[in-house]
Amino acid sequence: MEFTIVGAGMAGAFLALSLGRQGHVVTVYDRRPDPRGATVAVTSMNLGLSRRGLAALDRLGLSEEVTRLVVPMRGRLLHNVDAGPRFSPYGDGGILAIQRQDLSALLVDAACREPGVRFVFETRCTGLDRDRPSATFEGPDGRSFEVRPDVVVGADGAFSAVRRFMHHELRAEFSQSYLEWGWRELHIPAAADGNHRMADDVFHLWPRGDTMMFAHPNRDGSFTCSCVLPFHGPDGFDSLRTPSDVEALFRREFPDVLALVPGLGEAFLRRPTFNLVTVSTAPWTYEGKVALIGDACHAVYPFLAQGMNSAFEDALELTDSLARHPTDPAAALARYYARRKPNTDALAAMSHRNFAELRDTVRSPAVRLERACDTLLEKVLRHRWMPLHAMVTNTTIPYLQAQHRASRQHRILKVLGAAALSAGAVAVGRRLRR
Amino acid sequence: MEFTIVGAGMAGAFLALSLGRQGHVVTVYDRRPDPRGATVAVTSMNLGLSRRGLAALDRLGLSEEVTRLVVPMRGRLLHNVDAGPRFSPYGDGGILAIQRQDLSALLVDAACREPGVRFVFETRCTGLDRDRPSATFEGPDGRSFEVRPDVVVGADGAFSAVRRFMHHELRAEFSQSYLEWGWRELHIPAAADGNHRMADDVFHLWPRGDTMMFAHPNRDGSFTCSCVLPFHGPDGFDSLRTPSDVEALFRREFPDVLALVPGLGEAFLRRPTFNLVTVSTAPWTYEGKVALIGDACHAVYPFLAQGMNSAFEDALELTDSLARHPTDPAAALARYYARRKPNTDALAAMSHRNFAELRDTVRSPAVRLERACDTLLEKVLRHRWMPLHAMVTNTTIPYLQAQHRASRQHRILKVLGAAALSAGAVAVGRRLRR
Repeated sequence: MEFTIVGAGMAGAFLALSLGRQGHVVTVYDRRPDPRGATVAVTSMNLGLSRRGLAALDRLGLSEEVTRLVVPMRGRLLHNVDAGPRFSPYGDGGILAIQRQDLSALLVDAACREPGVRFVFETRCTGLDRDRPSATFEGPDGRSFEVRPDVVVGADGAFSAVRRFMHHELRAEFSQSYLEWGWRELHIPAAADGNHRMADDVFHLWPRGDTMMFAHPNRDGSFTCSCVLPFHGPDGFDSLRTPSDVEALFRREFPDVLALVPGLGEAFLRRPTFNLVTVSTAPWTYEGKVALIGDACHAVYPFLAQGMNSAFEDALELTDSLARHPTDPAAALARYYARRKPNTDALAAMSHRNFAELRDTVRSPAVRLERACDTLLEKVLRHRWMPLHAMVTNTTIPYLQAQHRASRQHRILKVLGAAALSAGAVAVGRRLRR
Repeated sequence: MEFTIVGAGMAGAFLALSLGRQGHVVTVYDRRPDPRGATVAVTSMNLGLSRRGLAALDRLGLSEEVTRLVVPMRGRLLHNVDAGPRFSPYGDGGILAIQRQDLSALLVDAACREPGVRFVFETRCTGLDRDRPSATFEGPDGRSFEVRPDVVVGADGAFSAVRRFMHHELRAEFSQSYLEWGWRELHIPAAADGNHRMADDVFHLWPRGDTMMFAHPNRDGSFTCSCVLPFHGPDGFDSLRTPSDVEALFRREFPDVLALVPGLGEAFLRRPTFNLVTVSTAPWTYEGKVALIGDACHAVYPFLAQGMNSAFEDALELTDSLARHPTDPAAALARYYARRKPNTDALAAMSHRNFAELRDTVRSPAVRLERACDTLLEKVLRHRWMPLHAMVTNTTIPYLQAQHRASRQHRILKVLGAAALSAGAVAVGRRLRR
């Protein structure tokens, strides 16, 4: 079959490769330049490749190639303001830090090795006729042209044009929601000897309640940081107008980082601020003719680091569904949607909740206590108890199943907590009666 | 101040009148033709004017003029399949049925009597610069022009163009959701002697679970019916392909109506099907320059009949806020939004719940029982207990307050129910022990 994919990001390039391997003919269009030449613009936080993503790359025989590009992170290191840093391991496998541009170039390269796959860059999708189906594009010379594949796939991100065209005047469910927090990227350069200036095998996390920061190690000795602040309020982006405003905030909240980035104030103010959006929509497909994958149909808050990992799962499920119904694309697309939608809905809910937890880790004793119990039970009940984060990150358990299991565990913790409280109350009562 | 209002429907025309009375200069643009000449296209169900809407019209001195156009409905008449019809009164005031075209023409006429107000029809809004602010339009001759008022108001309905332009690349919350049910209008003509063929002073309701129908009496002896069916399934619009399919459904579910509409099958199939959409968004305003009112910012399911009534309340709140901050439109618009948003959010939630209740009235003994208790307590506790529907329809209690009070009452009913159950259990227990 013949496919047109709009968007050559992680989702689109991976899908092109996956479909190409099945012998399909695929053309991928992207309005941006070729990632193998140009510098890829920052559009999302650092990439964290976890078990699911790695399993997907492995299925396409890429895990070895990818391994050469990653920096493994075996756990997270919490940087506290008062006490020293605290380490908590990720468990099996950990998470692999990888730079967007590296992985993007690798995927495009690998896809281009398939005889049926080609990429067309700097070419924007300007229209879709979902019934034929056909799509129109405008190339770098300003000229328009039309293509007529069997299926058009929108892999064009949270603000997907394909989605908008596909849903036009249909009874489509759609919601978008933004956090009152945004983020900016910061760069911690390598030391003079080329080494990392902090531990290079962990995910660095500075949770501070209303503000927080993360850092991923890069292969060149540097770190890429994501600094998450509210838009408004005393520590908000709005209030940081001069380099000394920025430095005052860092001195108070992230003093160790301030020492590592020369000219931090100016560097911070030069960077653009990014939003944190979540998008949910239905349906994802139109007959056997149009489909959406990745952020185009389920953009989530990035704090569980599952955006790319879930997009790879989408692509494999779509490919598998087409293989299962080789002559019936409508049945294939329906199967793909039915199997993925409940899982990415669960991912969205978990990502939302995870943000609140990350924020409150530092403040709420209840959250800290539950985390501690979770980790303890994991050790005691090995394989029969697994914290949510571990199920999402270290396994390929479908998201929905992970969510159900986590909420069962949560209920057990609550019952245990209540039992502990009543036992305590009984003990106190006995003591008083004596 | 100078205002541009996009949309001359109920919300826009009423706001123009309200602002005109305060001495503002207002131009209203609408892409449709003048409702005083043309036949107004059906875009929503029959209008039900309840206490809030009437109070708003009264504030502008229109209640007497309007009263000449209405047909009062003093309660609702439930048409059962097996038993005879059952009447339940609305209480104080009731609801007034009014035809959209009549009220629309009246409002435009009244607004035009204000020296500062004018209407421009068949002219489409094609753009908005929210910062200047300015808006561009395309007239019936195809020529474009730009206007530069102090404030642009989007009163252009659930699919508002002003909203889309205003929110472009802002962190705007937006969600739209559709019911799996749609509706078609049907007309029951007057009898040969010009009289109504059913009771003319009630709201007729045929609740059947998955399908339902309503009818409003018109002044000319006819009725306008809204027939609500699922899109899919055995009784869905999709399955009704021939006149005899339609008549079979009516014979089973709405036999009394079948007898009153000659050629019902053909008439039904000729009508378009309308969707039922709910829209929620934030923010509604941009600085002191752009504002949304009515369906453009809070389209709700129509089953509580509050769409127009709540739009009138929006318009009065916006006018009052401008009067309170005559030299500071930013403060005025912020006040308007802060006061209306919680109330229309409550309305949306209540409208959603009301649909489920309407559907299940016929099936669920629990819903029926709660309704009966509600009505009984209203009689016993007069003024201290009021069913939700009565608060929404017969009062001007803000929606949020109505919602809170109703959920308090709902909790009391549950406690009473539990108490009654336990009392029953105790009684049974005693009897068994004897």
